[in-house]
Amino acid sequence: MDERFKIGWDRLKELDDKQGDRLIEGLKDIAPSMVNYIIEFAMGDIYTREGLSLKERELLTIASLTTLGDTAPQIKVHVRCALNIGLTPKEVTECVIHCLPYAGFPRTLNALSAVEEVFKEREIIK
Amino acid sequence: MDERFKIGWDRLKELDDKQGDRLIEGLKDIAPSMVNYIIEFAMGDIYTREGLSLKERELLTIASLTTLGDTAPQIKVHVRCALNIGLTPKEVTECVIHCLPYAGFPRTLNALSAVEEVFKEREIIK
Amino acid sequence: MDERFKIGWDRLKELDDKQGDRLIEGLKDIAPSMVNYIIEFAMGDIYTREGLSLKERELLTIASLTTLGDTAPQIKVHVRCALNIGLTPKEVTECVIHCLPYAGFPRTLNALSAVEEVFKEREIIK
Amino acid sequence: MDERFKIGWDRLKELDDKQGDRLIEGLKDIAPSMVNYIIEFAMGDIYTREGLSLKERELLTIASLTTLGDTAPQIKVHVRCALNIGLTPKEVTECVIHCLPYAGFPRTLNALSAVEEVFKEREIIK
Amino acid sequence: MDERFKIGWDRLKELDDKQGDRLIEGLKDIAPSMVNYIIEFAMGDIYTREGLSLKERELLTIASLTTLGDTAPQIKVHVRCALNIGLTPKEVTECVIHCLPYAGFPRTLNALSAVEEVFKEREIIK
Amino acid sequence: MDERFKIGWDRLKELDDKQGDRLIEGLKDIAPSMVNYIIEFAMGDIYTREGLSLKERELLTIASLTTLGDTAPQIKVHVRCALNIGLTPKEVTECVIHCLPYAGFPRTLNALSAVEEVFKEREIIK
Repeated sequence: MDERFKIGWDRLKELDDKQGDRLIEGLKDIAPSMVNYIIEFAMGDIYTREGLSLKERELLTIASLTTLGDTAPQIKVHVRCALNIGLTPKEVTECVIHCLPYAGFPRTLNALSAVEEVFKEREIIK
Repeated sequence: MDERFKIGWDRLKELDDKQGDRLIEGLKDIAPSMVNYIIEFAMGDIYTREGLSLKERELLTIASLTTLGDTAPQIKVHVRCALNIGLTPKEVTECVIHCLPYAGFPRTLNALSAVEEVFKEREIIK
Repeated sequence: MDERFKIGWDRLKELDDKQGDRLIEGLKDIAPSMVNYIIEFAMGDIYTREGLSLKERELLTIASLTTLGDTAPQIKVHVRCALNIGLTPKEVTECVIHCLPYAGFPRTLNALSAVEEVFKEREIIK
Repeated sequence: MDERFKIGWDRLKELDDKQGDRLIEGLKDIAPSMVNYIIEFAMGDIYTREGLSLKERELLTIASLTTLGDTAPQIKVHVRCALNIGLTPKEVTECVIHCLPYAGFPRTLNALSAVEEVFKEREIIK
Repeated sequence: MDERFKIGWDRLKELDDKQGDRLIEGLKDIAPSMVNYIIEFAMGDIYTREGLSLKERELLTIASLTTLGDTAPQIKVHVRCALNIGLTPKEVTECVIHCLPYAGFPRTLNALSAVEEVFKEREIIK
Repeated sequence: MDERFKIGWDRLKELDDKQGDRLIEGLKDIAPSMVNYIIEFAMGDIYTREGLSLKERELLTIASLTTLGDTAPQIKVHVRCALNIGLTPKEVTECVIHCLPYAGFPRTLNALSAVEEVFKEREIIK
């Protein structure tokens, strides 16, 4: 296994124990090299940079995804990661709500719907 | 002075001592009520919520603006705020670079150009 | 009840008698303060401004949502409001089609799909 | 002259007497067929549809451009058109401010800056 | 039948034998004139321009749709067209992956999901 | 020099002999690691993939940048690359105009303005 891949894989395992396998399974038929880019580049190169904590990085990811729009699947993945590393449900919803003045109501409400699905899955809300 | 306005004004003063006056001056001819919405809603309602620190909120703002695009003037305002409240130049650039996998190279590079202007203004880089 | 909330609530009732209760129900578990921001800020502060009629404001909302993209749930809410206050189905579809040169075909076609769902629900088309 | 071109040209002349010549001049070296698409399609096909008034169409255009972002040159053209056909400065700024809850502060503030330039050019504000 | 409509209709038939009828059926109740704009403008005016091959145009369309976001239905239509005119599955996925540095991971992954649906429908992957 | 960096650097040199040095110079103070990501990831990993020609990749880049918006500096870089590798001015403008139905007039016109600047710089148009 390539060094960058290993660094990224370990980082992703820290965020979500199963997400690496899910990525490989989900992309193996259509675009297996996307797995490498996610693991090596997004996880290995970016998510392991110094200067911000892992929790801060997850919050920034959720803010970026909220603002981008059309990102419900990605928000759900990263809300699971956020909860896994000890961010509280309150910190996750605060992060989304904080984007409201910049991203507007539709983006914020759509992101909250995706967050809600994960919170139900985790039985944080019923 | 209205209570929400006062709460927002104080929060903005904490972020940047002069920004409130600049807003009033900049918007007085074209849309003075926008000042109220920025101070009362963005600053008073959102930026004073609990659950995230002020530093975390500034980082989330910069991530949201980086992702949104066409936001150079707003990024410059918030990078000044970020530095004013003690975020390091390193934390600011890390925040922008962290958005790269989600927002792509053009948005990230444009945001870094806006950050660079403020860093030069503050003589952080020459 | 707070004055701004009351003003916004009345405005929303004018647009859709049931939408306020739906908002409270839909957001009560995940982010109840979003209800306040929608009622007080979007409805109370913005939708009650002078200078444009309520019908014109609904059309502008639909144009903004069409252009933004990833807004099917919000378009459906506002098309219901538009019809409730007497805008004709023709005015609603014209509004979406007018955005075509600026927002492009995908945004316009997606918005028309959302409009169509409401028109079927209201038995305007079968 | 082709029929669709003539219809679009007349419509554009109604909005701004000089804009057609400016378009031809501005695009003649790089992409002259874009003039045809603007005149025939945007002006001839879309802007002459029935069901909404010309004033309503200008307001919808400004709302769409505000929301889209990176549209300062286009907003300036259409604010001139809006004023030419009798929309008041107040209606123009109201239209932009109405987009705030959907498009967010950065898009709205950038649009207001473009509006302000035209208002100064027309000596509506000093 | 109008000349521009015929030119566009023939071009669309070349891309997908059934898509014209599907468009008419899908839009007949909500916005029949959109059919004309798609056939006459997008197909007749743009897709028949000289200077790029039809295959190149389909790849550019898929890159544009990938970057725009909230375009799953449109990507599916154009991936079918791409395969119909002889682009290989490999060329289609390469085209989407090429947008990754500019459009970011969420847009690219969402586009690949839409591509995958068509590849399954065509039994290119199981 | 790292292998991925070398591969990316060679690819970039093929596209534009001077662009690598310009990148290093432009980013050295604010975010030197962005140079690595551009060279290693965008150029080394993505731009050297098989299945599409280098000319096709440049056209796809320009289509993606046109659609994204707020990308004038990036469009100018890639139009220079496109011309350097033998794409004709006609192919470049066709590529931008092809995005019109998906990205809309403002994005297309803004991209053409950026293209025009490079064409003047290269004395393709006066």
